[in-house]
This record gives sequence, C-alpha cells and structure tokens, in this order.
Amino acid sequence: MSDDLLGRLDAVLEQRRQADPQDSYVASLHAAGLDRILRKLGEECTETVVAAKNGEGEKIVYETADLWFHSLVMLSHCGLDAAAVLDELERRFGLSGHQEKAARDKTGGDAR
Amino acid sequence: MSDDLLGRLDAVLEQRRQADPQDSYVASLHAAGLDRILRKLGEECTETVVAAKNGEGEKIVYETADLWFHSLVMLSHCGLDAAAVLDELERRFGLSGHQEKAARDKTGGDAR
Amino acid sequence: MSDDLLGRLDAVLEQRRQADPQDSYVASLHAAGLDRILRKLGEECTETVVAAKNGEGEKIVYETADLWFHSLVMLSHCGLDAAAVLDELERRFGLSGHQEKAARDKTGGDAR
Amino acid sequence: MSDDLLGRLDAVLEQRRQADPQDSYVASLHAAGLDRILRKLGEECTETVVAAKNGEGEKIVYETADLWFHSLVMLSHCGLDAAAVLDELERRFGLSGHQEKAARDKTGGDAR
Repeated sequence: MSDDLLGRLDAVLEQRRQADPQDSYVASLHAAGLDRILRKLGEECTETVVAAKNGEGEKIVYETADLWFHSLVMLSHCGLDAAAVLDELERRFGLSGHQEKAARDKTGGDAR
Repeated sequence: MSDDLLGRLDAVLEQRRQADPQDSYVASLHAAGLDRILRKLGEECTETVVAAKNGEGEKIVYETADLWFHSLVMLSHCGLDAAAVLDELERRFGLSGHQEKAARDKTGGDAR
Repeated sequence: MSDDLLGRLDAVLEQRRQADPQDSYVASLHAAGLDRILRKLGEECTETVVAAKNGEGEKIVYETADLWFHSLVMLSHCGLDAAAVLDELERRFGLSGHQEKAARDKTGGDAR
Repeated sequence: MSDDLLGRLDAVLEQRRQADPQDSYVASLHAAGLDRILRKLGEECTETVVAAKNGEGEKIVYETADLWFHSLVMLSHCGLDAAAVLDELERRFGLSGHQEKAARDKTGGDAR
C-alpha cells in the first residue's frame, strides 16, 4: 500500500470529473447526478454485505473497494474529499471504543 | 490528514478487537458477530445517502466516516484489512474511467 | 391471510400516527421525522438481505414484514398509502416479464 | 385496489419462475440466483430512500412497488410467499405500537 493513496485518488477523481462523460466513468457519474451516485453507493453496500456473507476474501476486498470508490465520487460531487473523512476518523482515533460511541452519539445529535 | 492513517487504524482496530466488549465498541461489534456488523454497515450507508440528500457537508463527512469505520471492522472480522482494499484501488488507479469499469465488469464476473 | 390486510393496515397506521409518541412506535417514528423512518427502512432491508443469506425461513418472513411495515410508515409520512403501490403493481401485472422491465425502464426515465 | 392482489401476484410469480429466462424478467432473476436478487433488493431500497427525500409522490410509489416486487421474488426464491409476511403483519396487528416493538425485540432475539 502506498501512503496517502486516498489523497492522490482525490486528485485523480477531481481531474476525471472534468473529462468527457463518454471517456470517463467518474465523469459519467457526475453527469448523471447525485441520485445516480447514491444509488450506486447503496448497490455497492449491498454487494459488500452479500460478499461478506459468502465469506470470499477476494470478493469482499473487491466490493469494499467499489464501496469506497463510490463514496469518494459522492464526496467529490458534494465538494468534499477523503481528507475530511480521514480527519474525522483521526479525531475519533485516540478514544476508547465506548467513549468514542458516546462521543458519536453526542456529536451526531440523533439517538441510535 | 496524516499519511497512512488507515494502516494505523487497522492496527488499532486489531488491538481493540482483543479488548473486553464492555469497554470497547469495536470489541462489542466483534462479539455480536458478522450479522450485526453488516447491519451497521447497511445502516450507515443509508445515513450517508440521507446526509448527502440533505446537502450538509459536516454531516456527510461524519456519516461517511461511520461507513468507512464499520467497513474496517467488517474487514477485520473477516481477517482482512484496509491495506488490501487500498491495494485494489491502486490496481485500478492508472486506468481511465470506462476502461476501469470494463475491467471491473470482467473481474467481477457479473453483469451490471 | 385475510384479504385487504394492507388496506386495513393503512387505516391503523393513519390512526396511530395521531397517537402520543410515548405510547405508539408508529407515532414516535413520525415524530422523529422522515430521515429516521428512511434509516429504519435501510436497516430493515439489510437485515432482510442477511436473513435471506442465512436461509432461515422464519427470520426471512419476519424481516420482510419489518421492511414492508416501515415502507408503509414511510408512505403514510409522505401522504401516500399501500393502495397506490398495489395499484402500481397491478398496472404492471398482466405484462410478461421482460415487457414489464422494458416498461419500467421507460417509465422510470433512468437507465439501469 | 383489488383485494388479495399480493396473493394473486404470488401465483403469477410462481408461474413465471418456470418460464424461459429469455422471456421473463422474473425467470431471469431466479436463474441469476439469490445474490443477484438481493442486490436488486438493496438497490431498490436506496432508490426508494432517494425518491422519498425528493418528495415526488409518483416516484415514491413507483420505487416502493419495485421494492415490494423484488421482495416477492426473493420470498419465492426462498420457497416462501407474501401470505406468510401478511400473516406476520396481521399477528402484530392488534398490538399497540410500543407493545408491538417490545414484542418484536423479544421475538427477534436481537437487541436493537
């Protein structure tokens, strides 16, 4: 794994967003709009769940990559990036699990 | 954003997995089992979709962090890690968008 | 199975919507708002997927009932009801499968 | 709405299951297998969530019909039918909301 891959991926995704939708899957997703991107996100999540239930490691990795990839496109479509998500994960990082969950519940502002 | 955060997060998650489920949210997820972890994954995906539709940047980042976090726990539960997913993303990296999609369709072995 | 159960259920859900959220789960969902209802919908869908992968008939029935129940609450929250969905299913009804899918693709106005 | 539409739909789905996958969308789903059916279920759920956020009544009805339709195909693939789900909904029916939720929590055998 190369360091800071997600940061470099952010840059590539931003670049591809400007491409012709005919030539770039990323550009075609942006052209199709947020609802299409979210539909793909939901679809990839279900495929990840199914792969996990099937217990096939390679397929789990593959579908999780699809899930993260479409998350990144969604972030980019919303003017955000992976760096912000990694910052948020880092912020939670040092906390112990249940402290972290408590923190999440408070920050999230919604009971769950 | 610190480099290789996900790699460090993998290590922390592996460590917490060994903790008392009473003390650690991560350990409690592992103790509850794969189905519970997958349910959380699906739940966080829907929350990400709802946040994106609401267009609130901070909330989108927060929910995507939740989605990635629970992906990492799922990977760990299946004996996998973020490094494998980042490798897969890197493998796809240099490809142009539609080439990449074509590659995915071929590798995936299922029409979509 | 009693005929027109969903119609009667629509009526009951509408009645409970007016109840005190302290006393009624349905009223508490409406009070929490659309985002909460949608989160439950996504959660129940993932649980249905997991139950189907586990192949336990009773659990599949149970989770599908949860999925339909929360669909009905969502419809009611949006000023709609089961009757409209059953009408839509009936409209598609006489069509052969692929004709139906073609019809869906056309009506839906989105490629998939 | 015709009474007992779901019962009749069960019968039609069972009949189409025997058809040539080339001619029937239902038969093609069964031929593709459970994982494909579940992927569609997850996809339709996300589309329902997005439609609800967009607040377009006709689209909400349409996507909910898709969600229920693919639920019915899943039930049929697992040797179950709508009647069993309606029976389960009826069983919960007379209960007040929170009693019902308590009943669900107990029956479900999982904390949520």
